Amino acid sequence: MSVQSGTMKVRAIADHESNPIALEGAKGVLMRMLVGPDDGAKNFHMRHVTVEAGGYSPHHQHDYEHEVLILKGSGVLRADDGDKPFKSNDAIFVPANDMHQFRNTGDGPLEFICLIPAPMDCSK
Amino acid sequence: MSVQSGTMKVRAIADHESNPIALEGAKGVLMRMLVGPDDGAKNFHMRHVTVEAGGYSPHHQHDYEHEVLILKGSGVLRADDGDKPFKSNDAIFVPANDMHQFRNTGDGPLEFICLIPAPMDCSK
Repeated sequence: MSVQSGTMKVRAIADHESNPIALEGAKGVLMRMLVGPDDGAKNFHMRHVTVEAGGYSPHHQHDYEHEVLILKGSGVLRADDGDKPFKSNDAIFVPANDMHQFRNTGDGPLEFICLIPAPMDCSK
Repeated sequence: MSVQSGTMKVRAIADHESNPIALEGAKGVLMRMLVGPDDGAKNFHMRHVTVEAGGYSPHHQHDYEHEVLILKGSGVLRADDGDKPFKSNDAIFVPANDMHQFRNTGDGPLEFICLIPAPMDCSK
């Protein structure tokens, strides 16, 4: 852990800039950095993700974990041992190096937050 | 960052054990560990916090940061430069070493997630 300086911040999700993620294999995924490097957060970063109906994140793996909380909608987490359904108010842990994909199987948008250790960023 | 092993997990907030936090200066605060050491999460931990109407977390400081997302209710974040109001869907960053307190000023329960770097735990 690095000790860090920064400014206390209270800011609505909707007031953060939203950008499509530029990863091959993703469809209909927008991301907002809620707490990140610009805030002085040096240990881990909180991102907000919106996946349109029928959309999905890349089916991929990396050497760091995800900690996720589903805020709205429903879908499946594709894993090597099968699809794991999820819905709002589910907490999800994806260990480092596990293949994974978030798929929106609902009728409306899927929204979740997804945290990663700094300075990793699988959205680029 | 430590590379880690663990098991993929999808589990509802409500299915996690809820315990009062045992910190002096807290009133009406329950905490659930959503993603923590038992899951193999070695870099940061996700906790779910419920503060009853009229309740508050301790007014304190520590050498690590908080990353918070308000899920339900409203309140104020007490800081050295004044009270900062917050409501559901606000993202909050509390830098290391800043004095802070979460106060529920609404009529119902306040719920948020609060992440900390591992292995810190300000709930004990």
